[in-house]
Amino acid sequence: MLDLAVEAHDLARARTGKEIPGVRVEKEEHPYALVTTVQVETEEAERLMQKPKGTYITIESSALLENNRQIHQELIKLLGEKLSLLLKDLPETASALIVGLGNWHATPDALGPRTVDYTLVTRHLFHYAPQELRGGLREVSALAPGVLGTTGIETAEIIRGVVEKIKPDVVITIDALAARSVARIATSIQLADTGISPGSGIGNDRAGINRETMGVPVIAVGVPTVVHAAFIAQDAMERLWQELNQHPRLREVYKYLHPELVQRVIDQLLAPFGGRLMVTPKEIDTLVQNTARILAGGLAVALHPGMNPEEAYLYL
Amino acid sequence: MLDLAVEAHDLARARTGKEIPGVRVEKEEHPYALVTTVQVETEEAERLMQKPKGTYITIESSALLENNRQIHQELIKLLGEKLSLLLKDLPETASALIVGLGNWHATPDALGPRTVDYTLVTRHLFHYAPQELRGGLREVSALAPGVLGTTGIETAEIIRGVVEKIKPDVVITIDALAARSVARIATSIQLADTGISPGSGIGNDRAGINRETMGVPVIAVGVPTVVHAAFIAQDAMERLWQELNQHPRLREVYKYLHPELVQRVIDQLLAPFGGRLMVTPKEIDTLVQNTARILAGGLAVALHPGMNPEEAYLYL
Amino acid sequence: MLDLAVEAHDLARARTGKEIPGVRVEKEEHPYALVTTVQVETEEAERLMQKPKGTYITIESSALLENNRQIHQELIKLLGEKLSLLLKDLPETASALIVGLGNWHATPDALGPRTVDYTLVTRHLFHYAPQELRGGLREVSALAPGVLGTTGIETAEIIRGVVEKIKPDVVITIDALAARSVARIATSIQLADTGISPGSGIGNDRAGINRETMGVPVIAVGVPTVVHAAFIAQDAMERLWQELNQHPRLREVYKYLHPELVQRVIDQLLAPFGGRLMVTPKEIDTLVQNTARILAGGLAVALHPGMNPEEAYLYL
Amino acid sequence: MLDLAVEAHDLARARTGKEIPGVRVEKEEHPYALVTTVQVETEEAERLMQKPKGTYITIESSALLENNRQIHQELIKLLGEKLSLLLKDLPETASALIVGLGNWHATPDALGPRTVDYTLVTRHLFHYAPQELRGGLREVSALAPGVLGTTGIETAEIIRGVVEKIKPDVVITIDALAARSVARIATSIQLADTGISPGSGIGNDRAGINRETMGVPVIAVGVPTVVHAAFIAQDAMERLWQELNQHPRLREVYKYLHPELVQRVIDQLLAPFGGRLMVTPKEIDTLVQNTARILAGGLAVALHPGMNPEEAYLYL
Repeated sequence: MLDLAVEAHDLARARTGKEIPGVRVEKEEHPYALVTTVQVETEEAERLMQKPKGTYITIESSALLENNRQIHQELIKLLGEKLSLLLKDLPETASALIVGLGNWHATPDALGPRTVDYTLVTRHLFHYAPQELRGGLREVSALAPGVLGTTGIETAEIIRGVVEKIKPDVVITIDALAARSVARIATSIQLADTGISPGSGIGNDRAGINRETMGVPVIAVGVPTVVHAAFIAQDAMERLWQELNQHPRLREVYKYLHPELVQRVIDQLLAPFGGRLMVTPKEIDTLVQNTARILAGGLAVALHPGMNPEEAYLYL
Repeated sequence: MLDLAVEAHDLARARTGKEIPGVRVEKEEHPYALVTTVQVETEEAERLMQKPKGTYITIESSALLENNRQIHQELIKLLGEKLSLLLKDLPETASALIVGLGNWHATPDALGPRTVDYTLVTRHLFHYAPQELRGGLREVSALAPGVLGTTGIETAEIIRGVVEKIKPDVVITIDALAARSVARIATSIQLADTGISPGSGIGNDRAGINRETMGVPVIAVGVPTVVHAAFIAQDAMERLWQELNQHPRLREVYKYLHPELVQRVIDQLLAPFGGRLMVTPKEIDTLVQNTARILAGGLAVALHPGMNPEEAYLYL
Repeated sequence: MLDLAVEAHDLARARTGKEIPGVRVEKEEHPYALVTTVQVETEEAERLMQKPKGTYITIESSALLENNRQIHQELIKLLGEKLSLLLKDLPETASALIVGLGNWHATPDALGPRTVDYTLVTRHLFHYAPQELRGGLREVSALAPGVLGTTGIETAEIIRGVVEKIKPDVVITIDALAARSVARIATSIQLADTGISPGSGIGNDRAGINRETMGVPVIAVGVPTVVHAAFIAQDAMERLWQELNQHPRLREVYKYLHPELVQRVIDQLLAPFGGRLMVTPKEIDTLVQNTARILAGGLAVALHPGMNPEEAYLYL
Repeated sequence: MLDLAVEAHDLARARTGKEIPGVRVEKEEHPYALVTTVQVETEEAERLMQKPKGTYITIESSALLENNRQIHQELIKLLGEKLSLLLKDLPETASALIVGLGNWHATPDALGPRTVDYTLVTRHLFHYAPQELRGGLREVSALAPGVLGTTGIETAEIIRGVVEKIKPDVVITIDALAARSVARIATSIQLADTGISPGSGIGNDRAGINRETMGVPVIAVGVPTVVHAAFIAQDAMERLWQELNQHPRLREVYKYLHPELVQRVIDQLLAPFGGRLMVTPKEIDTLVQNTARILAGGLAVALHPGMNPEEAYLYL
């Protein structure tokens, strides 16, 4: 299962050799970003894409890789607008719980907890203040629940427990994702109104965190920070195969690249770590930190109607 | 309100000038430690001590300040025994939720989260394993919920939400405390079967975390890591007063040290930070780290009947 | 010995009961800051102040305590200007080595290393580039040498070794200071063209880092992050004494507050940690982080003629 | 150029199809480890292996991946013995400077600085103490100089500057290495009396740190923590090729796997990050921490004749 809907869509088309019925795709160009909205509308589309029905907005920008604060401010504004689209059915006074998924101690998986660190929480400040005094701020709380390996508790259970106590109108999860392609690392932000499916994210051990399990809408925000090493090996072999395959004699001999052969090579290459091997750029620490600030900025703009992007940025 | 029962007891006796009825105190000497058990048994005692009824065990050892692993191992054993006393009414198969209170990003307040980091969690490992395969391990989970200022949620609410989901048989909180006396910093471990009272701990913003709010027994483990700066100022003035007061002429003039005067001096001295000023030793980072390991070791020994102190230490 | 010249000046005047000859003081008001320039001009002044001859510029602003980026930008500009004053004798192409003194692992002492983290270093980038391509940037390198307790080497020795290799035109040290008064914590930035005197800073174990030991000018930038706990106790007693002393009978009995008595009380109060006890606000982590960014910003503006404060801020 | 001599040796044999003249290899089995000593003795061997003349001792143990302190203690002992071999020409009173290379903020590259953190430094303690009072301890200092990108200074320059000041009898560098094979990650410790060659280590930007540049013997200790992603892709293609190549028709068509083709596929796969992509296991944080403690333990045992492995372990 792929974390990014745009990659899942490409893969499904490549596998079936045709457009996927029940999927609508729109693209929008912005000065520093390309926004792709993928809508999975039918159960057939769901099955072919292996992504639940819903809206997936991907903001792609190589500017996320650069340390340019002026462009970052533009991206915060764009991110705030797109998040607002997914939140548009909520009342003006709706409260939000932001959940930073992932492991503080593993840099590429720390995006969620770091974003929580930069998040402006307000719930405790005006818990008892009358609505008219809240000055354009919504009630926002935030939680970094840790990961199964260090808590012994399914993350979904912790969140559900807290949701039942504080009853937010929406849950927004922040998660580091695994991409299929290296070019996606730290260059794509995906927003989805589907919440989190079981088994997604770097940790792979998530139970579902979505409207069914939480009882309120769940917006999932994710940014790829790694690619599984196995994909690098698999892609290398597939690309080699395509090159070799241009020769007619080879095509005679081998009809196709045997998946068992590919898997055997991958298993040999990646032992003894197997699926726990990740590919990530050297500068991942800086990339995660910059991205966490941009996400926190976009959340502030989307959640607090009285806050403009310049202000949001000044407080990061 | 004082966090340590032994200090609250001393203060109550000093204030009233006599023994406190309804309080029982026992002392036990160990090679590297003095153990004091204070039992608050009546409502009058509760009021005079400003500590809820219950048992408070304090392990005092200056060896906590030293980096001597052999003595640390002895302290883990002793801590394990004393914790077991407070857990003795629980069935052998009881499950425990360990909660690390406090703020990761403020060194003296990070004791709880750091202890969680060193904690051996097992709940996810044998969640589906039959009892006979669990090999002397109990079901342990752990949580570091953060602090009100960064989550916007009362810590007690988060914990209660999780407790209702995973239904542990006991909650064990770990917290950094504020002491009255500098000599207590990183030299005393307090275990209490009363849970956490509102307003205790360094953060001062805790709602109660106890049997009433959680529905299960709550054991509170705490170690002082700071003294409020105001106490240093107050004690300095009181000691000076006692010295001066030995002269009869002074006693004629001033009957007593006016509390308003003391407070005025403290307010002037500590502005603009006031109650947020803490006194802590330079080496607090190392002290918190060593103490967190000892607490995690004691917890492992007390919770897992099949684990001896040497083993516990080997895995820290 | 006091780290801040403005405090040393106040103390010298209080001790001697008159103005200090050979010291010139100028004050300048700015929208968010008060700038005091203390010039120690004679050897007598040096002795009375216990500060070496030279210029000490202190920028005081309570805005350092607030998380307001617009004012922070103003402070960066002001800091850049004042630093430039101290650097004015250097040629336009001068190179600088920034040295972050202090201990990464002790929050209040981490100001220097954190500032180095935010510092824009350029030396490796245009080491071989011709002058005309350097675009308004000076050659800047940075080092966080650690502390004696973790390296076993005098910090001054490490720096001198590096200075002899890379031959910068100026060394700029960044250090966390100890103040005499709590009100100075994280509200004063001191710039001095005297370098660092032996025994200053939180760590107290510095050998001198100055023009004599380094062979090039040394600018010392410092911000108080702690007050020694002993000062809190001493000030409390002195203030109490002043209050009591208003009564004539007391004056008859005690001529003055005995220093031995004060010391005895302090020793009792602070055992077993003594001089290693520091007073610091709970939010010191955030204060150090904000201050480090402002210092790095001011350094960038002062060192790189082509960089304006807005740009400097965008890259922090 | 490969960081590990054992891998360079395998590669050289594979390339030339025969044993490498001038290289001597010895293997020794230990209960939990295999020790391979590679001696590069001639200039021809140097050229074929692309490793400078000298002795390379590799301790391989999958126990490094496990959290078993009893076995770690055995490895500390073994590491201490092997390090002592390389130090055997030094006088009993020789002093050592331990240098932790790499970047604190990039987990897989933080092995050096973390080892320095665990290192027992003594130089400042008995700098003035007579030899007979030093109780079996040697004079040890330690430095974590940072990386070129954050200091602007070649690491070798910083070290040389410090070496000239404190004049140690030996420099011991600790560095995270890049392996050719995933199976080497965190399972091999290499000790070499050759120091560090230019361009080795994860950072790839090191100038040489060796007897020529430092004027004293340099022992290099390294542990692989990453594999370049390009090797995963290359190996996948080579293994696929070997499988396909068993068919005679393929051999007719393609004589060999074109290096240009392999490089083209790698370049496409790894854009836009290229050589900055690293493969590392998810649990790298824990692996680096455990390994740093083992290295610091082995260093303590080798450097301090009065310290046995049990003691060394107790103080980590």
